[in-house]
Amino acid sequence: MVKPTINPEDNWHHTDIRIRYKDTDRMGVVYYGNYLTFFEVGRAEYMRSLGFPYSELEAKGYTLAVTDATAKFHSNVGYDALVTIKTRISKLTRVQVRFTYLVVDEEDRLLVSGETGHVCINEKMKATRMPPDFVQALEEVI
Amino acid sequence: MVKPTINPEDNWHHTDIRIRYKDTDRMGVVYYGNYLTFFEVGRAEYMRSLGFPYSELEAKGYTLAVTDATAKFHSNVGYDALVTIKTRISKLTRVQVRFTYLVVDEEDRLLVSGETGHVCINEKMKATRMPPDFVQALEEVI
Amino acid sequence: MVKPTINPEDNWHHTDIRIRYKDTDRMGVVYYGNYLTFFEVGRAEYMRSLGFPYSELEAKGYTLAVTDATAKFHSNVGYDALVTIKTRISKLTRVQVRFTYLVVDEEDRLLVSGETGHVCINEKMKATRMPPDFVQALEEVI
Amino acid sequence: MVKPTINPEDNWHHTDIRIRYKDTDRMGVVYYGNYLTFFEVGRAEYMRSLGFPYSELEAKGYTLAVTDATAKFHSNVGYDALVTIKTRISKLTRVQVRFTYLVVDEEDRLLVSGETGHVCINEKMKATRMPPDFVQALEEVI
Repeated sequence: MVKPTINPEDNWHHTDIRIRYKDTDRMGVVYYGNYLTFFEVGRAEYMRSLGFPYSELEAKGYTLAVTDATAKFHSNVGYDALVTIKTRISKLTRVQVRFTYLVVDEEDRLLVSGETGHVCINEKMKATRMPPDFVQALEEVI
Repeated sequence: MVKPTINPEDNWHHTDIRIRYKDTDRMGVVYYGNYLTFFEVGRAEYMRSLGFPYSELEAKGYTLAVTDATAKFHSNVGYDALVTIKTRISKLTRVQVRFTYLVVDEEDRLLVSGETGHVCINEKMKATRMPPDFVQALEEVI
Repeated sequence: MVKPTINPEDNWHHTDIRIRYKDTDRMGVVYYGNYLTFFEVGRAEYMRSLGFPYSELEAKGYTLAVTDATAKFHSNVGYDALVTIKTRISKLTRVQVRFTYLVVDEEDRLLVSGETGHVCINEKMKATRMPPDFVQALEEVI
Repeated sequence: MVKPTINPEDNWHHTDIRIRYKDTDRMGVVYYGNYLTFFEVGRAEYMRSLGFPYSELEAKGYTLAVTDATAKFHSNVGYDALVTIKTRISKLTRVQVRFTYLVVDEEDRLLVSGETGHVCINEKMKATRMPPDFVQALEEVI
C-alpha cells in the first residue's frame, strides 16, 4: 500500500529545499558535504510523514546513530535552485534501517545519489530494537 | 603585566586559521556568518591560553551564553588564505564578559571587526557568577 | 499600501524554516552563528516576494555586499522547531539598504533580533546605484 | 621513499584539527556531515605538503571535482577534542585520484574512515589530465 506521503508516480518520498547562499562554495555550486545535511532533511521529513518525527523518537530515548554514508555526485547545482530530495528505505531490520536518497533539480536531473545506514541505540548508547509501531510503519512503505 | 599568550606588540591574543573551501560561498569569499565561528575559535583559544579552556568551564557546569554579536565587514578573503583572529576582553563583570575581535589577513589588512557579549549561566540556566579564579585570570589581561 | 507578501497583522514579511539537526550544537540549541544564515533566508524570500529574487539581481551584475550584522539573542530553540523569520527594511538609499529581522518560535516567542547592512556593488566591486525598479519596489514596502 | 611530510611510522599524512562548538550537534558530538569538511582539510594539507597547494592547482585552471564520497562512523568525538586526519592516496590515474582518510582521536581511537574520488576538470568543465609534475609528486607517495 502506497501511503499518501509517498509520491505515487515514483514511490519515493519528496521534500523540496531551496539552495541557500550559505550552501554554495567558491565553485558556485553546493559544497559536497552539505548533501549529507540534505539527506538528513529528507529522512526527517520522510519519518514525519509516516507519523514518527525523529524528534519524538529521540524524546522517547531512541537515537538512529549513523553508521555509514555514501554519496555519488552526478551534476552540480547553484544558488537559489529548488531541489527535491527523494527518500526511500532500502533495508530494515529490528535494530537497523538504511535510507536511499536521490537529489534532483526542477528538471528532475539527478544531482546526487546516496545512502545512509543507521543503528538504533538507547540512552546508554547500546544497540536496541526500534519501537515496534515505528518498524511497522516503515515496513508498510518498503 | 602582559601574559606570554598575548602578543606583546599589539596586546591582542592571536589565533591563526586557514580558510577552508567549506568556508567560502559563490562570491569566492568567506560567507559572512562564518566569521561568528571564527570569533568562537578566537575566544576559545584565548581562554585556553589563560589556563581556562572553555570545555573545562562547561565541565564544571558553567556556560558563557552569547547575548549579542556584532560584526563589521571591511574586506573579503578567499580560499586557502591564512587569517589571524585577534581577541581581547573589552568588558568584565562577575557575571558578564565581552570579547572584541579583529580578523586580519597575512598582510594585517583588516577583514572583519566584531564583538560578542556573554552572560555566565549555571546548569539550571540561571545567571551565575563566573568562577573567581577565572575572573581573576581575565582581570589580569584587560 | 501593504503588499500581499507582507503579513497584514504585523507589517513584516514572514518566512518559516524548520530547525535541522545540523543547525544545533552541543547545548542542544541553534548555534549562534547560524542565525546569520536564517537572516539570509529571510531577506532572500522577502526580495523574491517583491519580485526581485536576489539570484536575478546577481545575474544582472549587482551584489548586495554585507557591511555589518548584529544579533541579539533572547531565547534558545532546539531541533525540529518551526521558526518564523520576520524581515523588514529599516533603511533605504539608492546604494544602501538595511534589513531588520525578528526570529520567533511557534508561540511567537522572540528568539533573536538583528539587523544587516548592505551596499550595492557592481562587477568591478565598486559601489553602485541599485536598479531603479528594485529601489521603487523596496520603497513601497517601507 | 617516504617523504618527510608523510608520517614514517604509519605512512599516512597527518593533519590535526581542534573540534569547534560549531562542529557539534545536539548529541554532543561532531555532526556526521562535517567529516566531509575534515576530509577536505586532510587532502588540502596533504597536497600542500607535496608542494601542490590545491589553491594553486585551481589558479592554473584545474579543479579536482568530487565524484563520490564514503564515510564509516566508528566512534564519536565531542567539543574541543584534538583529532588527527590521516590521508593517503589510494588510486591514481592521469585524470583521477582517490584519497583515503582515517580520523582518529588523541588516543589513536578510530572515529571515522572514508574515501573520496576526484576527476580533474578544466575551466570548460571537461575531464582533463592533471599536470604531469603533480601526478609525478603523487606517484612518489603511493
